[in-house]
Amino acid sequence: MTRTHSATKVEQWGIFELALRGSARGNPYQDVEFTAQFAYKHREIEVDGFYEGDGVYRIRFMPDTQGTWRYRTQSNLDALNGTEGTFTCLPPGPDNHGPVLVSNTYHFSYADGTPYKPVGTTCYAWTHQSDDLEERTLATLRSEPFNKLRMCVFPKHYLFNENEPPLYPFPCLSRGESQWDVGQMVRGEASRGWSFDFTRFDPAFFRHVEQRVADLMALGVEADIILFHPYDRWGFATMDVQTDDRYLRYVVARLAAYRNVWWSLVNEFDLMRHKTLDDWDRLFRVVQERDPYQHLRSIHNCLVFYDHAKPWVTHLSVQTTRWLDVRQTSIWRDQFRKPVVVDECGYEGNISQHWGSLSAEEMVHRFWVGTANGGYVGHGESYLDPEDILWWAKGGVLHGQSVPRLTFLRGILENSPATGLDPVDGLLPWAEFSNVGQQHHYYLIYFGPHQPAQVEVHVPEGEQYRGEVIDTWNMTVTPLEESIVDGAVVQLPGKPYQVLIMRRIS
Amino acid sequence: MTRTHSATKVEQWGIFELALRGSARGNPYQDVEFTAQFAYKHREIEVDGFYEGDGVYRIRFMPDTQGTWRYRTQSNLDALNGTEGTFTCLPPGPDNHGPVLVSNTYHFSYADGTPYKPVGTTCYAWTHQSDDLEERTLATLRSEPFNKLRMCVFPKHYLFNENEPPLYPFPCLSRGESQWDVGQMVRGEASRGWSFDFTRFDPAFFRHVEQRVADLMALGVEADIILFHPYDRWGFATMDVQTDDRYLRYVVARLAAYRNVWWSLVNEFDLMRHKTLDDWDRLFRVVQERDPYQHLRSIHNCLVFYDHAKPWVTHLSVQTTRWLDVRQTSIWRDQFRKPVVVDECGYEGNISQHWGSLSAEEMVHRFWVGTANGGYVGHGESYLDPEDILWWAKGGVLHGQSVPRLTFLRGILENSPATGLDPVDGLLPWAEFSNVGQQHHYYLIYFGPHQPAQVEVHVPEGEQYRGEVIDTWNMTVTPLEESIVDGAVVQLPGKPYQVLIMRRIS
Repeated sequence: MTRTHSATKVEQWGIFELALRGSARGNPYQDVEFTAQFAYKHREIEVDGFYEGDGVYRIRFMPDTQGTWRYRTQSNLDALNGTEGTFTCLPPGPDNHGPVLVSNTYHFSYADGTPYKPVGTTCYAWTHQSDDLEERTLATLRSEPFNKLRMCVFPKHYLFNENEPPLYPFPCLSRGESQWDVGQMVRGEASRGWSFDFTRFDPAFFRHVEQRVADLMALGVEADIILFHPYDRWGFATMDVQTDDRYLRYVVARLAAYRNVWWSLVNEFDLMRHKTLDDWDRLFRVVQERDPYQHLRSIHNCLVFYDHAKPWVTHLSVQTTRWLDVRQTSIWRDQFRKPVVVDECGYEGNISQHWGSLSAEEMVHRFWVGTANGGYVGHGESYLDPEDILWWAKGGVLHGQSVPRLTFLRGILENSPATGLDPVDGLLPWAEFSNVGQQHHYYLIYFGPHQPAQVEVHVPEGEQYRGEVIDTWNMTVTPLEESIVDGAVVQLPGKPYQVLIMRRIS
Repeated sequence: MTRTHSATKVEQWGIFELALRGSARGNPYQDVEFTAQFAYKHREIEVDGFYEGDGVYRIRFMPDTQGTWRYRTQSNLDALNGTEGTFTCLPPGPDNHGPVLVSNTYHFSYADGTPYKPVGTTCYAWTHQSDDLEERTLATLRSEPFNKLRMCVFPKHYLFNENEPPLYPFPCLSRGESQWDVGQMVRGEASRGWSFDFTRFDPAFFRHVEQRVADLMALGVEADIILFHPYDRWGFATMDVQTDDRYLRYVVARLAAYRNVWWSLVNEFDLMRHKTLDDWDRLFRVVQERDPYQHLRSIHNCLVFYDHAKPWVTHLSVQTTRWLDVRQTSIWRDQFRKPVVVDECGYEGNISQHWGSLSAEEMVHRFWVGTANGGYVGHGESYLDPEDILWWAKGGVLHGQSVPRLTFLRGILENSPATGLDPVDGLLPWAEFSNVGQQHHYYLIYFGPHQPAQVEVHVPEGEQYRGEVIDTWNMTVTPLEESIVDGAVVQLPGKPYQVLIMRRIS
């Protein structure tokens, strides 16, 4: 049976959605194959549909080219097979720049060419809280500098995050114990008593996640979606291969059309004792093969690096450790030739854990270290709260002192070269202050805990630069009176945590 | 010819000195062999003598045992051969604890068993300045916490240190240019025009160095004597094998009897382009073979580590780099099983170089990081000065803010276990704050840039500890009211740069 739908209008990188009715008999999540071919002129793209429940099947598509698109569905269910139609892709709305892509090897831009400089934060389990709290998180994000948010699909059980989520991704057959501790996580054990029907999904759970991804999109925030994680007492960290793959395909079918999606395959992959490196390779390939738009893909470590050179990894998502330091960003760039995002270098806070008790000064310092080594850094906040609402886990409101400084940093990044900041050689002879820039245009030197009263800088001969001194903590920008030429000795305030920026003027 | 001298009295670890007259003909520095056997009961020690000039030959000896010592000289010069005598070694004076030795694998003590916890500083070229300035340096040391000083034998040419020294170690035959730069150092080139008689020494030069070593001894400061270094425009960094060896034997013969001597074979060995690793092995062995007292021996790196596992190295003398960090102290301990002294982790100051522009806060922080990883850290200061008198190079006075905090740190070290502070496992589950101690007695945790509001500590079951919180910058010690038992949650001020100390009370 073939039905032709009337043409609708969708903005570029918006979402075209087709909903068809079909039989709900049997287990449509497993039994029904449903895809569509979307075509623009001679270009064809295959897209997976998904079952929404109640006899409704959907397919979503994000067009990347303006003009007329055609589509045609295929299914092993007659009611879903052979539906054809067209729609018109219009210019994008004012704040729609498309999905984020890797650009200039080590950096990012939106699909429309607008530079994207990540200043991310972390609210792992924010979509598993009350509506009230989730709205408060969105309100916070509205006024803060973050343009990326790390968030888990699965609910999370961990320190300061032991509340039962309102919804589960699979139908719950029996509820188990809510006791679970970090030792069990390390040993790869779930709590006792939980049982789910892993052959089906709970569409309400996924509709909720989608709504939150759409909310972030409306705020201009990229959703760095963590597909697996080890902080689990329900058994979602220990599903079998078929369930993992089916789950991934379902998530990708539902979410890939949202332009602000990034795929973070797993958080702390090396803590998931039931999965091997081969499993991660396979799961990466599932995402790579099923995502028609090739959204960014990364994998996040605890103590051990995955081989980020593998072709399905688009960029590094790093957690630093005792021996992996933000300063090594420039080394990882050289090693993997990909953008480096240090998503987790510790969080501003005061909890007992070393990773959640950074002073605001240290959080800001680490952002600048990453920046001045050619990478990007992520934020999180973990201050003790009487109601156990810590931003890093549940969202809510921010209490710390680093955020205004990150707003300031983001402003400086946005006024830096569109092509990104890369490590520069020879700017400062005999000194090892981290420095980045774009040769002949722009240089940025970060002095960190150093306080030189002056530095001699070596810009290319014959060029002139305008200098400004940035106080990263006090958020001041002080233009230098004299322009800077090769060999100039630049006076500095002799205080720590300063930046010198030089912009070409002739 | 045999002369018997009357018995004299020398305190334990003091200096017995014998001066004999002999011929000054020919080149006594090269031609005359002069040694003595010192004997206590059946124990015999061979000691090298040296030529003082003007027909005077000396031999110095530091007795390590109280009682009657005998000696007998040997020489190829009749006048020096066969002199015999005895002297009485008396108990040491009140501030004389003997030389410093390695103790408990990773630590130090004086020969009399008194713990020695190094809090060192650096004045490379202080003995090559005017008497006035040298006396000012001694006056500064009198009131400051330092109990070790790194100093070069050879004069030094480097940034902020270009003045001609008053004396040279060898007779100067012709004076050369005073122009020289860091590039020439890296290429291993001297200035043009300098010429010395390398077959002879200038005893006045060495008498002066000795006087300054004795001055430090009187202040209770160990002299960490740097025997070679690359900051040289005169040719002392590029002497031939025979001259190097003769120079080393002369220095050892003159200085080894001073109980506060440590041998630092070379500063930044890897910058001395004319010497190979084999050369350093050989020079180490010269010192090892000629020093009757086996003073501490180390070698200091620029970018590359010497193999500190070699048997003649008594402890590590580390310069940190971009990738060698004070935090790695605990790793180096494990790797080499020797004490780790991070002699150079940067200096407090405001010069253009990264190594000389640390804020006082960062200098103090690095001391605590080294301490909390089971090692020891060294200080230096390099603030720009209108007369180019920077402490790190020339001595003089101190301007910085770190020194009172190092006095405070030294006080805490002196109240810590005599057997030293070693990394401890299991004190803080799931946290990576550096911590050291002596099991069942004493624990010290340094939180650095972290500000946990509380920590759970796991001391051995059944034991009770008294806690105190140290503010490393504000130099306060706040005793905790409640005693600490296994699993106790200790409240902390939620500020960075705090230390928690726990002392066993039952």
